[in-house]
Amino acid sequence: MRTRFILIQTSHAGNVGGVARAMKVMGFDDLVLVAPRWANVLRREETIQRASGANDVLAKARIVESLDEALEGMDHLCATAMTPRDFGPPTLAPRAHFDALLRPTVAETPDQTPAPAAPEGVAFLFGSERFGMRNEDVYRCHAALCIPTAPDFGSLNLAAAVQLIAYDWRQALGGFAPPAAAAPPRSLADTQALAGLLQHLEQALVAVDFLDPEAPKKLMPRLNQLFNRAALSEEEVHILRGVAKAMLKTAQQAKR
Amino acid sequence: MRTRFILIQTSHAGNVGGVARAMKVMGFDDLVLVAPRWANVLRREETIQRASGANDVLAKARIVESLDEALEGMDHLCATAMTPRDFGPPTLAPRAHFDALLRPTVAETPDQTPAPAAPEGVAFLFGSERFGMRNEDVYRCHAALCIPTAPDFGSLNLAAAVQLIAYDWRQALGGFAPPAAAAPPRSLADTQALAGLLQHLEQALVAVDFLDPEAPKKLMPRLNQLFNRAALSEEEVHILRGVAKAMLKTAQQAKR
Repeated sequence: MRTRFILIQTSHAGNVGGVARAMKVMGFDDLVLVAPRWANVLRREETIQRASGANDVLAKARIVESLDEALEGMDHLCATAMTPRDFGPPTLAPRAHFDALLRPTVAETPDQTPAPAAPEGVAFLFGSERFGMRNEDVYRCHAALCIPTAPDFGSLNLAAAVQLIAYDWRQALGGFAPPAAAAPPRSLADTQALAGLLQHLEQALVAVDFLDPEAPKKLMPRLNQLFNRAALSEEEVHILRGVAKAMLKTAQQAKR
Repeated sequence: MRTRFILIQTSHAGNVGGVARAMKVMGFDDLVLVAPRWANVLRREETIQRASGANDVLAKARIVESLDEALEGMDHLCATAMTPRDFGPPTLAPRAHFDALLRPTVAETPDQTPAPAAPEGVAFLFGSERFGMRNEDVYRCHAALCIPTAPDFGSLNLAAAVQLIAYDWRQALGGFAPPAAAAPPRSLADTQALAGLLQHLEQALVAVDFLDPEAPKKLMPRLNQLFNRAALSEEEVHILRGVAKAMLKTAQQAKR
């Protein structure tokens, strides 16, 4: 499935750079500008600065005169509009729409007319910073995506809106894995190892005169629960037993 | 639950403004800056410009000297770090962590030690643009959030990172509803209305010599399926029957 971001009549060069960066960080690179304010917007200093390394997206980007040219090869159009239009496409939250779009209805029996397949080219359309999208451009779209924002402040920066849509769409497409932790996975201590630790600690706590064996109250069950919640690793059990051992040794020396 | 965003040693004033805007658009307003590069960063022109109306967040923001001061009252700390640290907190994707955090384990029987409740104050920590977070600051955190980005380009702008975290966190907290569509909800045409339309259209298509009643092929079932997928409203059925009526009338006039 191809993904395209289309900016219509964008006026701030910095935003074009920010959009290129926001796209690349989510693995997208097809950017089309319809009649931007600056003809040289892709080469302006502010653009390149805010792109912060997403130069290949800028290099590949196209500038066209009309929305028609920008839409070539796309078969599913998503407007991004904060204001729903009468007779326009349904207003939907991005996540819900992406889920529905990628799970098309399946025909129930083989001899039924097959349901339409998932789209092959999805375009996200963003209007100008000052005026948003024109009604006639919104009417062409299959959905009007509305990012849910605070009721009293819906002023999303253009690059921020692209960032959120690109993120949700990438996640819906399966996402990128977070980097593996540098440390190898922890190997959890089993209950026997934990019981050994608690016994060892109990002796140490008695030795340093913190725990009174005649009136132990609920100290050991509390520690047991604390360690359960912490899900101790084998290595951590070793460390804590080392602490218990050192406490016992110091207590013996103190009694000499 | 309280939510705080903490920026550590931020160097670009524009980013502070962008962060204020990103927070406010998701309904958050508690911003703390630890040792920013500019002491007057909250009043700089670039900051106010990029905040684009989120002036109340800037007015409420605090500047402090140390992370300790910034953390007051918080009991769950999320680092945002692209590079996992040995011996640091687990590296987690934001959505998965937020889901787990807001659904704490429930004790299975009433007499068990109750599971710890959900946190009351959650802080999101962001390092400086150039160096990220210091190891010792990451070690204090309960989780290291890693926004899943393209494997070859993980360079998220600071305000963009705050925007994504604020969005995921707001969604996890229940989200904001998208605005209701301006138009009243469509009232779907029932199957009887659809059957009437198809009959009317069939007559009209015969009248304009498009459909041969002796060899109708599969035209009407195809139209039926098309209309099923489109989920026609009652109003749309009226419009299409108006079209059929006009076709029939024109065909009659043509035969005179």
